[in-house]
Amino acid sequence: MTSELPRRPGPSVRTRVVEHTAAGGSAREDRLITEEPLEIRVRAGSLEPRRAWVTMRTPGHDFELAAGWLVNEGLAPAGDVAQVAYCTDNDLTPEQELNVVTVTLLTATDLPHRHASVTAGSSACGVCGKDSVDEALQTRPAVPWPGARPDADVVRRLPEALRERQSLFARTGGVHAAGLADADGTLLVVREDVGRHNAVDKVTGARVLTGVSPAEACLVLSGRVGFELVQKAAASGIGSIVAVGAPTSLAARLADEADIDLWGFTSAGRTVRYG
Amino acid sequence: MTSELPRRPGPSVRTRVVEHTAAGGSAREDRLITEEPLEIRVRAGSLEPRRAWVTMRTPGHDFELAAGWLVNEGLAPAGDVAQVAYCTDNDLTPEQELNVVTVTLLTATDLPHRHASVTAGSSACGVCGKDSVDEALQTRPAVPWPGARPDADVVRRLPEALRERQSLFARTGGVHAAGLADADGTLLVVREDVGRHNAVDKVTGARVLTGVSPAEACLVLSGRVGFELVQKAAASGIGSIVAVGAPTSLAARLADEADIDLWGFTSAGRTVRYG
Repeated sequence: MTSELPRRPGPSVRTRVVEHTAAGGSAREDRLITEEPLEIRVRAGSLEPRRAWVTMRTPGHDFELAAGWLVNEGLAPAGDVAQVAYCTDNDLTPEQELNVVTVTLLTATDLPHRHASVTAGSSACGVCGKDSVDEALQTRPAVPWPGARPDADVVRRLPEALRERQSLFARTGGVHAAGLADADGTLLVVREDVGRHNAVDKVTGARVLTGVSPAEACLVLSGRVGFELVQKAAASGIGSIVAVGAPTSLAARLADEADIDLWGFTSAGRTVRYG
Repeated sequence: MTSELPRRPGPSVRTRVVEHTAAGGSAREDRLITEEPLEIRVRAGSLEPRRAWVTMRTPGHDFELAAGWLVNEGLAPAGDVAQVAYCTDNDLTPEQELNVVTVTLLTATDLPHRHASVTAGSSACGVCGKDSVDEALQTRPAVPWPGARPDADVVRRLPEALRERQSLFARTGGVHAAGLADADGTLLVVREDVGRHNAVDKVTGARVLTGVSPAEACLVLSGRVGFELVQKAAASGIGSIVAVGAPTSLAARLADEADIDLWGFTSAGRTVRYG
């Protein structure tokens, strides 16, 4: 019976609003981007599943988010992800099942201690579970990218190509996007999320789940570039980061150290190369 | 000797960049917003200090950030903050001392277990340390705001007033701002940070450290409004949230439940009232 199926939340929801201008207020319908918590559980080999993280995210591409997060946080190599599934544990209501994902790893290696303990992050959280200033600044081994990278002319075309595929942004105005492009500027995967870090986990997670295509080594971002996003890119074998917004001081430093091309303030008219 | 003083990182740093347009590339100087980790330690009464959180933040107003974070996370009432200071522990280098802050609370009550364990968050992290979907959605008791709130005409003036005081944004283009205004639209405190959540902790932390002024009950935000920002606002006794960007579905729901006026997509020309 379909009535027993859990309701899957859509990526945006309708709401009634009142828009006010100098001329007064008028009621209309609006769309809000959906924000819901997602719990990621990890089953390493034959071990019992363990709760690894909770993030606020936009529902959709949850399996990619979970797989991408694990790989980008350095908790599992891409080839170790055996299965991703919504949970059907007895302790969950049908609605909760769609907010809990279990990733099964081939290897029975336990999670590092800091992630085995119960920690959680927000929709824009990248260093959760790291326990000190020093540890927060540790970088994971970068996967080197020896192939071709887009030049400045290609780079300037990428934000417009991304924007054309930001369907949730067009509807809600409240969501970030990340894309993967090749050196010729062809945009192959685009994902949207309320959290910038989630969007990157989703788009790189798509590579994990479909098999990594080494040609798609340019990460395109609708927003700014912080340290944690460069960390994730380095762990995912990204060769270039092209952002619409500004990089931070630590982001530029890490991109330089990890030999990642970093472009900020990118539009059709100009782009700025850092480092 | 001043040469022995630790170098305090400024809120922005100089860097050399190459700007590319269709006409080619040209080298120039640019400024990046500074991003550095801050560790917050808490000393509850006579107990030993414990590490509570690590966040990536823009240096400056660190004491406000630490005090505001503690209060907004429901870990301490505002009146319980006795002292905030940079750490001078033997295990820290002079540079590290400026990235570690200890908050001393009057009461020896221990931190709740989830924060006593070692957890960390990023510059935009609000639900760190919460350990499940259910817990992530729990709201802290809202401090009711019975006073006057800005009307739509006042609301539309607030983003421009905020922008005029965003000096770091003007220099770097890579930083969020939060402000506190009264019902007449007078903006009394403005703080900037790479993290949206940090900016809110700083601006509400300023109220904690200087004594809460109940008149400044409107929170003005340069960006979007997610669930965790409404959580923080509710814990801080905010009556209105005025944002330049979009709210999320959960943010609108919580604002409605907490009796907070929520305004999004606000500019001089228009504003949209949610809930």
